[in-house]
Amino acid sequence: MNTKQTDRRRFLKSGAALAGLAVGASTGAGPLAAEPVPERIDELHLYGERSHFVDSVRIGSINNPERHLENEPSAFGLKTPLQDSVGMLTPASLHFIVSHGFDPPDIDPEQHRLLIHGMVDHPLIFTVDELKRLPSVSRFHFIECHGNSSTAGPGGVTRLALNATAQDTHGFTSCSQWTGVPLSLLLKEAGVQKGATWILAEGADPNKHSKSIPLAKAMDDALVAYGQNGEPVRPEQGFPLRLVVPGWQGINNVKWLRRIDLVDEPYMAMMESTKYPTLKLDGKSRWFELELGPKSVITRPSGGHHLSVNGFYEITGLAWSGGGAIRRVEVSTDGGRTWKEAKLQDPVARKAHTRFSISWNWNGEEAVLQSRCTDDQGVVQPSLAELAKLRGADLEYFRTLTANVGDFNAIQPWKVNRDGSIQNALF
Amino acid sequence: MNTKQTDRRRFLKSGAALAGLAVGASTGAGPLAAEPVPERIDELHLYGERSHFVDSVRIGSINNPERHLENEPSAFGLKTPLQDSVGMLTPASLHFIVSHGFDPPDIDPEQHRLLIHGMVDHPLIFTVDELKRLPSVSRFHFIECHGNSSTAGPGGVTRLALNATAQDTHGFTSCSQWTGVPLSLLLKEAGVQKGATWILAEGADPNKHSKSIPLAKAMDDALVAYGQNGEPVRPEQGFPLRLVVPGWQGINNVKWLRRIDLVDEPYMAMMESTKYPTLKLDGKSRWFELELGPKSVITRPSGGHHLSVNGFYEITGLAWSGGGAIRRVEVSTDGGRTWKEAKLQDPVARKAHTRFSISWNWNGEEAVLQSRCTDDQGVVQPSLAELAKLRGADLEYFRTLTANVGDFNAIQPWKVNRDGSIQNALF
Repeated sequence: MNTKQTDRRRFLKSGAALAGLAVGASTGAGPLAAEPVPERIDELHLYGERSHFVDSVRIGSINNPERHLENEPSAFGLKTPLQDSVGMLTPASLHFIVSHGFDPPDIDPEQHRLLIHGMVDHPLIFTVDELKRLPSVSRFHFIECHGNSSTAGPGGVTRLALNATAQDTHGFTSCSQWTGVPLSLLLKEAGVQKGATWILAEGADPNKHSKSIPLAKAMDDALVAYGQNGEPVRPEQGFPLRLVVPGWQGINNVKWLRRIDLVDEPYMAMMESTKYPTLKLDGKSRWFELELGPKSVITRPSGGHHLSVNGFYEITGLAWSGGGAIRRVEVSTDGGRTWKEAKLQDPVARKAHTRFSISWNWNGEEAVLQSRCTDDQGVVQPSLAELAKLRGADLEYFRTLTANVGDFNAIQPWKVNRDGSIQNALF
Repeated sequence: MNTKQTDRRRFLKSGAALAGLAVGASTGAGPLAAEPVPERIDELHLYGERSHFVDSVRIGSINNPERHLENEPSAFGLKTPLQDSVGMLTPASLHFIVSHGFDPPDIDPEQHRLLIHGMVDHPLIFTVDELKRLPSVSRFHFIECHGNSSTAGPGGVTRLALNATAQDTHGFTSCSQWTGVPLSLLLKEAGVQKGATWILAEGADPNKHSKSIPLAKAMDDALVAYGQNGEPVRPEQGFPLRLVVPGWQGINNVKWLRRIDLVDEPYMAMMESTKYPTLKLDGKSRWFELELGPKSVITRPSGGHHLSVNGFYEITGLAWSGGGAIRRVEVSTDGGRTWKEAKLQDPVARKAHTRFSISWNWNGEEAVLQSRCTDDQGVVQPSLAELAKLRGADLEYFRTLTANVGDFNAIQPWKVNRDGSIQNALF
């Protein structure tokens, strides 16, 4: 990298407090001013709540021992209630969580620091307020656990149940508007040295979760996010800083981000060297399988919903792809014999949930509803049979709860029964 | 309106439960299924909260008697903390509120009904679940009180204060992704009769707030919204149903919507005939001044913020217009002598907040920061002097707290002092 070019790109060179490893020089003077709030004010007026008639909640292994991860019993997953979703945003209070056994660390943002070091010309430390002074971007991105909708993931048992809801089958994905600083800007500021090819991102959680990410991706579209849906990132999502790595497996989106180390090979940190490589049927492992394929699910009507009368129903759902934007969603109401193109609702953003919808008249007979998406790379979401073929497996293999097949993006069929009940019809 | 065309457009004709004034026929069978939740689960896991270190709240007349509306002492306004905003969405918990003297009605959505009647062929009653069966749209729209940022509005005193924040000056605007059914679809379903030229929309609040809206606007882009930012509309915003009338004064966006009456003239309901006409200097009133003009405000850095050191700062803010999408935002850092074009962040949606940003190096000297937007109709946000000229008033007139000048969309200047403090510099 040309040093002069790098210097011309540096935003902070005129601000002494930010140049170099200047922990002591950072002021900690937060620019945020709030009027003093009298104690008598009703808290609901200050920061509102939803109606007590709304009972949509995250659920998952935490309230069902059968759903615990086999090899990590303290871990838990909580899924987004997709069957109640509208639009393409997930309320921050309902964003899915996969936790490796602890509650979110209680971080004082004024004390938190982000260190960028390793193979760089200028190691840097940033306070959160210093990051907020830098050029920001806001982008819609989904984050999805790589185990989402697979039989082997943390939701294995419920994924196969006939009475599974869209939350049970697909609830480990959520979409937010993330606001923050492009990681590329911070890395240019630090001056990446020749030979650096990976970053190691580390969180401030008790386990110091660490993830190796290729430098090319870090320079492409990764974000150091301090904002989520218009307010600070939530504690369960990494407050005060989360690394957002668009379109890649959730594990890359390091929460409570505190350190980025520029290195020349993957670090082989705990998660990436133990739980996240997936075994292929030939006995070899997939390493650093990172980008998530195109996936979609009908959220309404879906498993657990009930059609009360014959007649008109909008069929609506979400589609997303790690490869880019969704270009097309097709919907079948006859078990896959015929497909019609659904309408995509704005915004259709890259690596973000996209809401689709299509009209349907239910005649009271059995029906199988399913959606199939195509991304702007032309990649089409496969059926279960097609996915099995791609992975060199048979359908029975997918039924087993230990089947670790990597990204599982098969089409999800919902069966509508004559009594209006709706069931999971994957198998 | 051609009846055959109308019938072909009807979505519900095959569903007996929805045709006609069929209250008894609606089943009330909600399609939402949630797993039973054990009591032992931590509530934060079910529905998360923000960090206790985040103290950004709505403030307004409720905690400052000086800010009460002069002629309606029980009313209160609570403003969105724009100085802390990121991206272009307002968290539902921080959406501004103007209340005419009561807390939100506690409505059971299963009991709530929307009646469409008056000059229609088929009077209709809908349950909320029936509305959710219909073709939906999700769109980003701001809602803004017509008194926002004016000296005469509910924030008059603080609007003029030197230590005003962006919340004090502009906090009666918020932006959400609203999901619901186009009102045009419901009206076509009901069959609007010849001669109907207005609708009267009525809420289920204690005052039965009512608002007359021209039929042309109702058929253009109004929404009967049940969703806000991915979950049900919040109680303070109209749960379970709110009429969203994009780009028009907030008063049109009827909360707790329960009735739409097709009529042939404006109804002259309480608010629109007493508080909302504004007096012009020639002694005549403006009636049904509805569309909001282009407006913008720098949110960071802004009043109450503090620049701790010289150097690089991103200047960022929000721009919006009732006329359509924002086409351009210019920023001046030298009191209006020179202007530079700011970057608009995606999404740039029609009648929605648009986030803009531009780089700035503060040299430690006094500076005056201001933004000026232009919408896609080519309408430019005026300076205070230009606005005074447009309204036939002098600047002193604007200083008076009783100056009722209608939509006040003057450019907002923030003065940066040498000590890094930032002040309201409107006058």
